[in-house]
Amino acid sequence: MPSPVKQLCSLVLATTALLAGINAFATDRGKLAPLMLQEQGSFAAGGNVASAPGIFDPRKPMEPAGQTYHGDHAYAFYQIPVDARKYPIIMWHGAGQFSKTWETTADGREGFQTLFLRRQYGVYLIDQPRRGGAGRSMLEASLKPAPDEQLWFNQFRIGLWPNYFKGVQFAQDPQTLNQFFRAMTPNTGPFDMDVVSDGVSAVFDRIGPGILFTHSQGGGPGWLTAIKNDKVKAIVAFEPGSSFVFPQGEVPAPIPSAFDTVQGAVVPMSQFMALTRIPILVFYGDNIPDQPTDFPAQDSWRARLQMARLWRDAVNQHGGNVSLVHLPEIGIRGNTHFPMSDRNNIQIADLVSRFLAEKQLD
Amino acid sequence: MPSPVKQLCSLVLATTALLAGINAFATDRGKLAPLMLQEQGSFAAGGNVASAPGIFDPRKPMEPAGQTYHGDHAYAFYQIPVDARKYPIIMWHGAGQFSKTWETTADGREGFQTLFLRRQYGVYLIDQPRRGGAGRSMLEASLKPAPDEQLWFNQFRIGLWPNYFKGVQFAQDPQTLNQFFRAMTPNTGPFDMDVVSDGVSAVFDRIGPGILFTHSQGGGPGWLTAIKNDKVKAIVAFEPGSSFVFPQGEVPAPIPSAFDTVQGAVVPMSQFMALTRIPILVFYGDNIPDQPTDFPAQDSWRARLQMARLWRDAVNQHGGNVSLVHLPEIGIRGNTHFPMSDRNNIQIADLVSRFLAEKQLD
Repeated sequence: MPSPVKQLCSLVLATTALLAGINAFATDRGKLAPLMLQEQGSFAAGGNVASAPGIFDPRKPMEPAGQTYHGDHAYAFYQIPVDARKYPIIMWHGAGQFSKTWETTADGREGFQTLFLRRQYGVYLIDQPRRGGAGRSMLEASLKPAPDEQLWFNQFRIGLWPNYFKGVQFAQDPQTLNQFFRAMTPNTGPFDMDVVSDGVSAVFDRIGPGILFTHSQGGGPGWLTAIKNDKVKAIVAFEPGSSFVFPQGEVPAPIPSAFDTVQGAVVPMSQFMALTRIPILVFYGDNIPDQPTDFPAQDSWRARLQMARLWRDAVNQHGGNVSLVHLPEIGIRGNTHFPMSDRNNIQIADLVSRFLAEKQLD
Repeated sequence: MPSPVKQLCSLVLATTALLAGINAFATDRGKLAPLMLQEQGSFAAGGNVASAPGIFDPRKPMEPAGQTYHGDHAYAFYQIPVDARKYPIIMWHGAGQFSKTWETTADGREGFQTLFLRRQYGVYLIDQPRRGGAGRSMLEASLKPAPDEQLWFNQFRIGLWPNYFKGVQFAQDPQTLNQFFRAMTPNTGPFDMDVVSDGVSAVFDRIGPGILFTHSQGGGPGWLTAIKNDKVKAIVAFEPGSSFVFPQGEVPAPIPSAFDTVQGAVVPMSQFMALTRIPILVFYGDNIPDQPTDFPAQDSWRARLQMARLWRDAVNQHGGNVSLVHLPEIGIRGNTHFPMSDRNNIQIADLVSRFLAEKQLD
């Protein structure tokens, strides 16, 4: 087939996909334009190796002598659309979650993985070291099936169990909740900010410059990743949970809440300054109280949002470029802790797209 | 855009992809035709729920009282190409592995996930219950980073550590071995044939009829899945490891090896007969000795291949349709325990495609 015909077809279909993305997303799955991928695949990045002393005896394979163990790598699954934009997006899950965070939503719509592919971005989904497919940990773990989902229902601000928040952007059928709870997977080793940021930094080393999306617990090590690796060209952080970093001498007073006390973390000024050199967009959703409450789940987010604002101000005072969007303040209501998979996730994606366009990252 | 133009473009590009698949696979990644996907996404299927007694107190969220725990589901990531064939393929990993088994090969080529998408099959990748993204187990587990990779190097018949088998279909650079070892992830609960086959059966309940590909440890519960669910329309089993099922009174004598003793498992005749009603293709690779050896890794496969042949005969004697292909016997040499990701995986995919065509499953 002559190449120009193929290119024209690619262009026509890509344009269709783009228009579909803007005009007809998720209204009728059957009518969505095809996804056109140039390439997809997966790899491990980073990690460490342990070796048992001695010499391996192939007749005694169950003995560790002379054997190795590779662990603490990140795992990434990637897709590159035809005619991809300049920078890919690396999407990093939060606590108790894995790459699924960015895939199909609990109520069965397209998540950010596919939405941003349709918007012509390369997309890399991460399982951080010691989570999901990146399960080989250099340290031991003991896993117990502890009932904890009502905690998460509240902590993720879907409602106050068993009630949903009024107007919440989360479908209220039992099957959605079933899928939501089954999107969790445990740590297979202790959570370690340095280990996970090393793993994601190694992903950037492999793929080159890109845009980092973080969710929740991924927020803190996300800042560290940008400090460690200047291939992180921007960060979009969805409800970063804690571990905001400040330069020595500028750490704000701890903020107590009914859940815990939120503390800033200290980094040397030279590291902190790395965060002033990239555009950063931070989102928080709805149902975060202004005033203290004795419900730990909601109160924890009051304290985190407050610390996030102090952090935004600190970075910007040093010449940074952080925007913090508390969605209700711009009239977008009902978002949970997962704005990227909430029912209005196309509206959220539009805000992200606009940010990336404004910063000339698209 | 007028729909006929779009359809023509889809057809043209799909044809290109097909031709590329046949003629130009993996010779130059930059020249591969685009993948055209109608849809992609992920979901959990099956599983159980535990509940702690008592009433949940939102002010004491760390206490289990009144909380639930969803676990033991399977996780599936799927992609449906444009103009997909009748049946999708459900790909199920083996021991110590996860969905990555079918993705990019350790040396960076396209795995069966993408190869069969290019051949216009819908593809579902499974993480079985208690593995990878399906990590929430209903039972406890204790994970230890035990050095064991030289065992796997031998067990997976890449060679006899530290030597590679002569002519092995596995790239011998260190980076490939690094990726290979990092494709492992631990069980997050005890391996249980019933639990994992229930999970995969639930995937079939959700998606409807399909073709099951199994690898290694997935082989045994693969037979159980076909017994449990008649939506399994065919099985292609790559080096099924053990747990071959026989009807009562027809179980062959155990086969001892330097690794373990391979035993047939008993199922009622009515269940066994389910396996006679679908076409089944079984592959074994190279470097499986004919005669006993004191190297446990290779000897284990001698015993397994022997049991597999007895099983093939038993199913076929009851009217079944099992083909067992020991690759060296048809002149295909050097395959490891992972024929679907070996260097000649396109040749293996061609054998699978021919089988599916012959059985009118395409």
